Amino acid sequence: MSGRFIVFEGGEGAGKTTVTAAVGRRLAHIGHEVVLTREPGGTPAGERVRALLHENLVPWGEAFAFLVARAQIVHELIQPALDRGAIVLCDRYAASTFAYQGYARGLDLATLRAANAAVTNGLEPELTVWLDLEPAVGLARKLGEAESIRTGLESVAFHERVRDGYRRQMEEAAPGSWVRINAAQPLVEVEMRAWEAITGARLPGT
Amino acid sequence: MSGRFIVFEGGEGAGKTTVTAAVGRRLAHIGHEVVLTREPGGTPAGERVRALLHENLVPWGEAFAFLVARAQIVHELIQPALDRGAIVLCDRYAASTFAYQGYARGLDLATLRAANAAVTNGLEPELTVWLDLEPAVGLARKLGEAESIRTGLESVAFHERVRDGYRRQMEEAAPGSWVRINAAQPLVEVEMRAWEAITGARLPGT
Repeated sequence: MSGRFIVFEGGEGAGKTTVTAAVGRRLAHIGHEVVLTREPGGTPAGERVRALLHENLVPWGEAFAFLVARAQIVHELIQPALDRGAIVLCDRYAASTFAYQGYARGLDLATLRAANAAVTNGLEPELTVWLDLEPAVGLARKLGEAESIRTGLESVAFHERVRDGYRRQMEEAAPGSWVRINAAQPLVEVEMRAWEAITGARLPGT
Repeated sequence: MSGRFIVFEGGEGAGKTTVTAAVGRRLAHIGHEVVLTREPGGTPAGERVRALLHENLVPWGEAFAFLVARAQIVHELIQPALDRGAIVLCDRYAASTFAYQGYARGLDLATLRAANAAVTNGLEPELTVWLDLEPAVGLARKLGEAESIRTGLESVAFHERVRDGYRRQMEEAAPGSWVRINAAQPLVEVEMRAWEAITGARLPGT
């Protein structure tokens, strides 16, 4: 039996972690085995990578550190869970590498794609749920106040490139493999749209 | 002013660390600024990578962990040293990745080459000094006794593939960019041959 591999993507403050957890709880409630993962953590090596990412890495060092964590998560957690029929919900995956390190930071996409295919052994999600939000809004949510982002204009520009990177990946994706959800809606609405995209069904009472 | 970048390569027990240090001392003695490095250490990130490498990584995870360390060493240590005119002696570099992770472990060489070119920004040594030794002899040196390797036949086969990987890289290298030294000789002889290869001169009294 083969499980389902679903990835949640999006910029800062889009609600990925909250929505992933909520959808996961609901899927577990109706009887599925659900495995939640979040890069780079989830494995002992991933925790080491998390520490490494605090070391002010050069851009390629940062990119490959994430790929080390991904190699371990796929091998230790995701692939075994899929093999036993579980639903794996992953908070960020390869699309983050392409959006952040590729489109936003400018690293060569062909090299990133080849490296990512190597560490994942070609494993791709059946569905990518993109929680899309204006970067200025997401960063403000993250910082807790809109004022703070005045000092981070370059940061907003970076996150605009991230968003553009997600947009382009969705344009190039196979039909039906990406869904974009407007993450400016209340989180409960976002969760409903995600549920519909994943199960093909409406939530009761909506 | 631009410095010189020289790499020492070879299997286990070939004497790389000893010879690199001896040649470095001698070059410093005649007035050169010498920088010795050894992967994956040498930077704070490198020490984090060293810890990460103890986490039983999958092959691609291991390969990219080394590349994270290399990205940092090139950026923080090697390139700045070369820019100020120093002689950089590196105990292992890209050729180790290709020999161990590529030829011996079987990871795709084209992907490894592209990834390595990315993290090094294309920086290659002007000279690679290959200390070549029968793996069985090198492993016995490392283990301290020849008997021990009876239990490590598969390990010897792996190190035979590493050696073959070095041989192939030397065959494909630009003329004069690799030198092979028979590391079965006494270390003082190996050091003399390395000195000649690097300086083009004989050591006084030899």
